[in-house]
Amino acid sequence: MLSIVIIGTGNVAHHLLKTFQKIKDVNVVQVFGRKQSNLVAFDNDVATTTDFGSLKKADMYLIAVSDDVISMVSGHLKDTDALVVHTSGSANLNEIQAKRKGVFYPLQTLSKDTAINFKEVPLCLEASNSEDLGVLNSIAAQLSDSVYSINSEKRKSLHLAAVFVNNFTNHFYHIANTICEKENLSFDILNPLIKETIKKVSELSPKLAQTGPAKRNDVITMQNHLDMLSNSIHKKIYQLVSESIRLTHEEKL
Amino acid sequence: MLSIVIIGTGNVAHHLLKTFQKIKDVNVVQVFGRKQSNLVAFDNDVATTTDFGSLKKADMYLIAVSDDVISMVSGHLKDTDALVVHTSGSANLNEIQAKRKGVFYPLQTLSKDTAINFKEVPLCLEASNSEDLGVLNSIAAQLSDSVYSINSEKRKSLHLAAVFVNNFTNHFYHIANTICEKENLSFDILNPLIKETIKKVSELSPKLAQTGPAKRNDVITMQNHLDMLSNSIHKKIYQLVSESIRLTHEEKL
Repeated sequence: MLSIVIIGTGNVAHHLLKTFQKIKDVNVVQVFGRKQSNLVAFDNDVATTTDFGSLKKADMYLIAVSDDVISMVSGHLKDTDALVVHTSGSANLNEIQAKRKGVFYPLQTLSKDTAINFKEVPLCLEASNSEDLGVLNSIAAQLSDSVYSINSEKRKSLHLAAVFVNNFTNHFYHIANTICEKENLSFDILNPLIKETIKKVSELSPKLAQTGPAKRNDVITMQNHLDMLSNSIHKKIYQLVSESIRLTHEEKL
Repeated sequence: MLSIVIIGTGNVAHHLLKTFQKIKDVNVVQVFGRKQSNLVAFDNDVATTTDFGSLKKADMYLIAVSDDVISMVSGHLKDTDALVVHTSGSANLNEIQAKRKGVFYPLQTLSKDTAINFKEVPLCLEASNSEDLGVLNSIAAQLSDSVYSINSEKRKSLHLAAVFVNNFTNHFYHIANTICEKENLSFDILNPLIKETIKKVSELSPKLAQTGPAKRNDVITMQNHLDMLSNSIHKKIYQLVSESIRLTHEEKL
């Protein structure tokens, strides 16, 4: 049985707690949060604390906090003999100030309000020694069918790619939604197109799958679209992404 | 039996010919293309011509060409008593120079190399009179389970929204793909994330579904990502879309 303390109260902490509680070999003994108010959602499931001095003893400390405070948080654990692990896509393994360091990065978009099938979440692992990588592997294999050992550099690239395919794509769904709302059109009418967009890239490379006015350099349609966008930053996005598509297909990029 | 001449040889013409040939009440009698070389792919299936003077008589002319030449092409049909229809998302109904005008817009990304289930393609129809709208409706209903009567203004908005959810999203898949290739990572590792991104927006609004460094205004991670992008236009896209996400979530947009 591996005992774990989770440090952090955000989306990743929330989902990992739920998922760890479903497997036998792991026992989450405590969740740490800076603010009492953020711990309310956890209080029924596990012991909680707001005080680094009151962290329970555990085999592993799992730091699921913003990248910019990983180093500071791990500083509280620099003398522990336990394995100290962060869950970030972009922070280096060495940002952890502890003797035994690891990374346990779920390559997925996690929101508190959305259930997730962890079996399908790619888990990207790294550790400062092979024994600890083995520990992470044995936990990961119980959670997911897709477990990868990936070093910090490659993980950072994956995280950057993930920002494009998820964060930025989702923001474009938001922009499309505002365009539909303005005309009282249901966003649902776009669903078949959204589905086909992802189906296509399983069959063709994204470059070959590209269609639309920017690829055709259809200047009149693009100007009409710009005229329809009232928001100046959405206009700039339209121009820039269209230019990027055009240059890509003219092999200038 | 409704006879149709298709004008154009691109992706839309290609898919509509294939689809029309599957239904009983429609007979595609000819395909027009400016260049003989573009007609080669059609020659085995249907009569073809490169000469406007040799267009066959038909009940309907379906113009599937670039938006900027719809008006010019339809000028060749201004004296016909047949229904003249374009397939564009953004061209106005009135760009057609003919007595009986219509629009038959498939809201889908169509590439020649990808098969499509037309039953799931939303068809957006418009016509200058209700009788012709009825004609278009009766054809559309045989092709698709999603048929909408939508005026030119709303159709243009839908097309603009479609550019964001398909063209721009697909380009971001391309950028992600280049990032993965550089590190010898398989693009497939991103598939669960891509799928979850679209699943989430069927459950939450895109605004609520947003996650990532830009939403959190995680400046360090964003700067790291910018340092990793070697292409200057990709850098600019990263900055601009991140700014748009941040402003949206600060309710400043």
